[in-house]
This record gives sequence, C-alpha cells and structure tokens, in this order.
Amino acid sequence: MQVFDALWINVQLATMTDNGQPYGTIADGVLAVKEGRIAWLGPKADLPATDLLSTPLYDGQGQWLLPGLIDCHTHLIYAGSRANEFEMRLNGASYQQIAEAGGGIKSTVAATRAASHEELFVLAKNRLNTLLRQGVTTVEIKSGYGLDLATEQKILEVAAELGRLHPIDIQKTFLGAHAVPAEYQGRADDYMALVVDQMLPELAAQGLVDAVDVFCEGIGFSVAQSRLLFEKANRLGLPVKAHAEQLSSLGGSKLVAEFSGLSADHIEFLTEQDVSAMAAAGTVAVLLPGAYYFLRETQLPPVALLRQHGVPIAISTDLNPGTSPFCNLPLMLNMACTLFRLTPEEALLGVTRHAAAALGLSDRGQLAVGQKADFGLYAISQPAELCYQFGVDPLRQLVKDGRVLPLTV
Amino acid sequence: MQVFDALWINVQLATMTDNGQPYGTIADGVLAVKEGRIAWLGPKADLPATDLLSTPLYDGQGQWLLPGLIDCHTHLIYAGSRANEFEMRLNGASYQQIAEAGGGIKSTVAATRAASHEELFVLAKNRLNTLLRQGVTTVEIKSGYGLDLATEQKILEVAAELGRLHPIDIQKTFLGAHAVPAEYQGRADDYMALVVDQMLPELAAQGLVDAVDVFCEGIGFSVAQSRLLFEKANRLGLPVKAHAEQLSSLGGSKLVAEFSGLSADHIEFLTEQDVSAMAAAGTVAVLLPGAYYFLRETQLPPVALLRQHGVPIAISTDLNPGTSPFCNLPLMLNMACTLFRLTPEEALLGVTRHAAAALGLSDRGQLAVGQKADFGLYAISQPAELCYQFGVDPLRQLVKDGRVLPLTV
Ligand SMILES: [Zn+2]
Ligand SMILES: [Zn+2]
Repeated sequence: MQVFDALWINVQLATMTDNGQPYGTIADGVLAVKEGRIAWLGPKADLPATDLLSTPLYDGQGQWLLPGLIDCHTHLIYAGSRANEFEMRLNGASYQQIAEAGGGIKSTVAATRAASHEELFVLAKNRLNTLLRQGVTTVEIKSGYGLDLATEQKILEVAAELGRLHPIDIQKTFLGAHAVPAEYQGRADDYMALVVDQMLPELAAQGLVDAVDVFCEGIGFSVAQSRLLFEKANRLGLPVKAHAEQLSSLGGSKLVAEFSGLSADHIEFLTEQDVSAMAAAGTVAVLLPGAYYFLRETQLPPVALLRQHGVPIAISTDLNPGTSPFCNLPLMLNMACTLFRLTPEEALLGVTRHAAAALGLSDRGQLAVGQKADFGLYAISQPAELCYQFGVDPLRQLVKDGRVLPLTV
Repeated sequence: MQVFDALWINVQLATMTDNGQPYGTIADGVLAVKEGRIAWLGPKADLPATDLLSTPLYDGQGQWLLPGLIDCHTHLIYAGSRANEFEMRLNGASYQQIAEAGGGIKSTVAATRAASHEELFVLAKNRLNTLLRQGVTTVEIKSGYGLDLATEQKILEVAAELGRLHPIDIQKTFLGAHAVPAEYQGRADDYMALVVDQMLPELAAQGLVDAVDVFCEGIGFSVAQSRLLFEKANRLGLPVKAHAEQLSSLGGSKLVAEFSGLSADHIEFLTEQDVSAMAAAGTVAVLLPGAYYFLRETQLPPVALLRQHGVPIAISTDLNPGTSPFCNLPLMLNMACTLFRLTPEEALLGVTRHAAAALGLSDRGQLAVGQKADFGLYAISQPAELCYQFGVDPLRQLVKDGRVLPLTV
C-alpha cells in the first residue's frame, strides 16, 4: 500500500509532458504528493491502493491542474519608475531630450544604486507577490541595474534573500554586462574587463550566480566582448545565456550555442544558421512579446524556423522598467499567441517545460513523478482559455512544494 | 461650520477637470463627502471649518485620488467561450473551417440563448467583480448576443439586476442590431424591421434601454438600415451610438453625429469630414485598443484629427468573447498609449471624464463638487504610472457613492 502526503482528485491534468495528448492531458486524473514531490499521477482508475483515511484529499471538482508557471527572464529588482519618460515620449520629447532629463537605463541605475537593500527587497517582493497570484512558482532574476560591483552584489543578495524568504523559487543571473555605465562611456572593453576579471569571479565565489547573461547588441556588447565573458563563465562552471538578435543580427545566439548555453533571448533577427546552431546545442529560444509590443517592433521572431528545427520556445515577461514594464506572465501568453502566432499549447509549454529548460532545471515544468509538486488549479474549460481570455482570474489554488499557498500574499 | 460625512486628507487629487493643471491636479488636497456626493475639495489650506471630532478621516498618506474608472463599451453578458476557435485559428484553421465547427458570433449567440438568467448573472457578476477590483465604478453593458426578443430581454434584465445588486453602476445599451441572426440570413432588412418595430419599443417600454447601438459595417448593417433604428430611438427619446468605421469608412459615425449621438466607437477608418461632424455634434470618439490588438489591425484611429477638432476621446475594453476577450480596463490604458500613442493624460481622461460623456452622464468622471463620490486611491508616484506599468496592482482603496468598498468581492 502506497503512502502519500496528499491527493488531488477529480482533476484534469495538463501534464505538459510528451504523452501523445495535447498538453499532455490526462482526463479525470489523480495526482499524489509526497515530501514536496509528485509521487504518482494518472487516471483515477489506475490509482494504486492507498490508505485514504490517513491521506488528505483535495477535490479539484473537474478543474484543470497545470505545472506552476515559470518566468525565465526578468529584471525585477530595480528602483525608480520610468513613467515620467514614458509620458515625455508620448508628449513628443525626443530621445535626446529624455536623455538630458536623466532618462533611460541611467535613471534606473542611479535609482537602484541609491536604494538600500531593504528598499529593493520590498519593491521586488511586491512584484514577486504579484507573479505568485498569477500561478508563478519559479522566477529568474537578473542583476544589471548596478553596473558596479557593490550594486550588482546588492541586487543578487536581494535575489538570494528572496529565494530564502519568498515562496517563489529564484534563479539568480548575473547581468553585469547589461550596459556600459556612464563612468566607462566609450570604454566598453575596459568595463567588460572589470566584469570578467573582478565582478563575476567575486560574485560567483559568494554563491550569488546561477548563470551569466550579456546584452549582446550594437548598443550593448560585441560578440568578441561577450566571448570573453562566456569563457570566464565556462571556467567558473557557470551556464551562459544572452540578450541577442533583438535589434539586429549580430551573432550572440550562435555564441550562446557555441558555449552550449541555456538560452538566447529576444532573437527577432535570428537567422536560420543561428536556429540550427541553437538546435544542435539544445539552447532554448526565449521570446519576449512584452518588449516587442512595448517597443512597437515589427520584426517578428522566426517562429516557423524554430518549429522546423525543433528548438524549444520559452515565453517570459522580461519584466523591466525600460522596455517591458509588465509584471504579468498570463498577459504574455496572450501576446505570444496574438502577436507571435504561437499556438496556446506552445505558449503554455513556453511558461512551463521549456521555461524550466531555459533555466537548466529538470525538476519542474511538468506534472510527472519525481518533479517538484508545484502546480496550479484553474477554473477553465480547456487549457487554451489561459492564453485566450485575459482579466478574469481563473486560478483557484496554488501549490508549491506540495503545500497549498494562500493566494492573497 | 460645514458638516461632512467623511474626509479624505493628505491626498494628491487628480480631479481630471479643466483646472489648468495636468490631470486637473490639486496637490496636498482634501476631499469631503456628504450623502454620496463630493461636497468639497481643494488644497488642505483652504478646508472650511468643520467639526473634525464628528467626521471620520481617511489618511491617504500622500497617495493619488482619481475618479472611479468608467468602462463605456462592453458586451460583458454572454455565455460560452471562444477559446476553442482561438486555438483552431492559431493551428491554421480557416474562417470557413471555424464557421463549420460552429464558431464565430453564432456560437456565442447559441450559448447565450441557451443560458438561463441565473447563469448569465453569475458569469457577468464575475466579470464585474474583476473590473471593480481594477477601480471601475461605472460600466456600460450592451445586449446583442440574443438577436431575438426573448434573449435580448434576458440580457438586459440581467444587466438591470446587476445594476440593482452590484456596487458598479450599469448603463444598459440595446444592441439588437449587432449582427443578422442565422434565421434572417440574407434578410437584413427584415431583421432590422423586427429590431425597430418590435424589439426596441417593447424593451424600451420595460425600462431596459438607456441607449441604442448598432453595428454599422459592411458585414453588419448599412447606414440606411441604421438610420431607421436611430429614427425610432429618436422618437422614443433614447440616445444613439454606433460601432462604426472599424473595418471600412461607411458613414456610421456621421450618422451618429446627425442624430447628436453619444459616441462613435472603434472608428479606425474615420475621415476628417466624420471628425468634424462629430465635433459639431459633441459626439465622443470611443477607441477600443483591445480589439485593434486582438485583430492585429494596422489602420490606426485618426488621433491627430480628433485632437485637432477637439473631439473628446474615450477608451474602453470592448469586452467581448470574439474580438476583445479582455476584462481589464487598466490594460487598455497601456494599449491606448502604446498602440494609439495617446498621452497618459488623454488615456486617463478616456476612462473618466470622456467616458462619462460617452454615456451621457454628467454626474461622474471628475472629482468636483456635486459629482458622485466615486473614486480610487492609488499608490503611485504620478498618474502616468497607471498607463505605463501593468501588473503590480496600485489600487489601495475604492469608494463608491461615498462608501469604502471591500476590494475582494
Ligand atoms: Zn531582458
Ligand atoms: Zn463592441
């Protein structure tokens, strides 16, 4: 007789596994949890003998159970607001005028440098609570609004503290190479040397870095500079990823693939060569429809090529104050379908199984035995509802590591 | 000594009036309520003598007070879901295939006809609760998924009942002329005769109609057919409005103006002649960015012309299952700015003062003496925040008719 900590009965399981059904569906299913993991799942008829009198049951009333959502690309630790800049631009101000008024990433860097650890913690916790109420159980957080060792460290320490104190699991990404700070204007090589030789090793030694990211663009860092960073990450045993091919085809994605990196993100200007390199390397394509929408881009990511080459597609908020001020992952499901023409199943894979792959995590993103017991129960008629309508909240219950969370954090 | 029911102190007032300041701002303000109305407002220093010991105070802690939001164009009473159709389309199905599978407006009409009054009430209440939590205090609801007398009446009765039982104020619009029902295929004139001669007079006699709307498009009703409807509305003393110029320049907006109508809605294909007719008639331009986004339209509404001619612009969700499945008015603020390039002040006027005008209501939409005491308190640094970021909920308190509402309905 098997022993479980709890059973979810009377649920439609969208396992998001490759079980041959759309969404990996198991109809009229049961899911059993033990010690924070999924211990059994399947059709009700196959449930093994268990002592029902000693096992709490949750009756899902025929609703849908999906894996906890994963937001695999965010910059959610920052201070300040860019609402002013947004308003100036809509009132006709030029980029020059906004820069002169202290706008752009510089304003976020200045505010984040000035903010205390506690201030950043409260701001970020508020954003995480918002994501939690949407069914999100794992979030990647990048540094990159410090651009000096002390502030990059402060951001990653806040991320680490959130990881310890907040129900959401946090993956910490070092993005010291987010932009060239004002102090290094015109000296990107020197700044990259600082990132590579000092920041990264020191922060990695403190256990603050799970992965290394770079903004590889004409207005950011070159492929050659990014390569230096990736070589260092490699020597430190850290996986890499890049903001790449958002504004032009520069080669960042192929570089990520060369280092067997986790993901190339944005990638509107990806070429077929890049796609095939990513496919060979197992690199995930992370699409960020919020930024595409907010920047009113017109170059669509090459979804057909990604499908053709079997590159897994993830979807994320890119939550950041400059180009994607959207603390809402369900909205990105709709945008991925509406703007990028992903199918609802592709979009949902993009915030579950493929988002886990983008973070190098194999213990989540699917409903399967051995996976973390992170899942949400939704009052929907079918999984596509989660991509189609937006506004009415369908989440009825959220479970993290086998424990039911209060949804009003 | 003046006597008030309650005072809001220590608030930034975005009155949305024409007081010469952006957003009609009054800094460090006080707002007094008496008998459900705003009895006084102004800078703290000017507060008249009042018996503070007998007046409850709410300390806004420096946060922003704005008028209750108004969603002036929704179709929120319907049954069924179109998620299936959404998914089919993204999987490559043609409109023909979707129609054969029972999709399109016909599926919503069939589900709405089949639903009981109670079922529609629960569905609609859930949507209204969602809007309430976003700070919305007045909502227009259109019929139009019945297309027969009994179902149009059922929808408007549900709307009337929601108006009695739900904290949100409801305006009921008769949209029997939403589409030609299957029973009248190819006989649009006959159906319009039914609408004009039977449905409208009967529903109006029952007090179920606050305004009359028509879908005036090539795929809907012609200007000549719409004119018959408006003439009847006129004789019944009911104001008119139209879905117009969304897909082509047909002349519906000018017709609305000719009848001194409340609003012309969608209006992507509006001409300058139309704009100037609307300006002369005082007709409001209702922009619906959710539908523009969802349908991936490319023809932008002529915002510059509307500004130039001084036509008031309102913004709304167009909440409906076919073309704007978005139960979220704050998201429309962002879309109005991002997609239509409205300024944040224009967007916020579009869901307050100008939305009230679109409904012919002069007692709300601004913070001013005599207006209904409908307002929300927001934890924001400036009003533009409400248009710029989306996700983290800034609403801290919602007041309807002078009473603080619980936000978790
Ligand atoms: Zn990013
Ligand atoms: Zn409409």
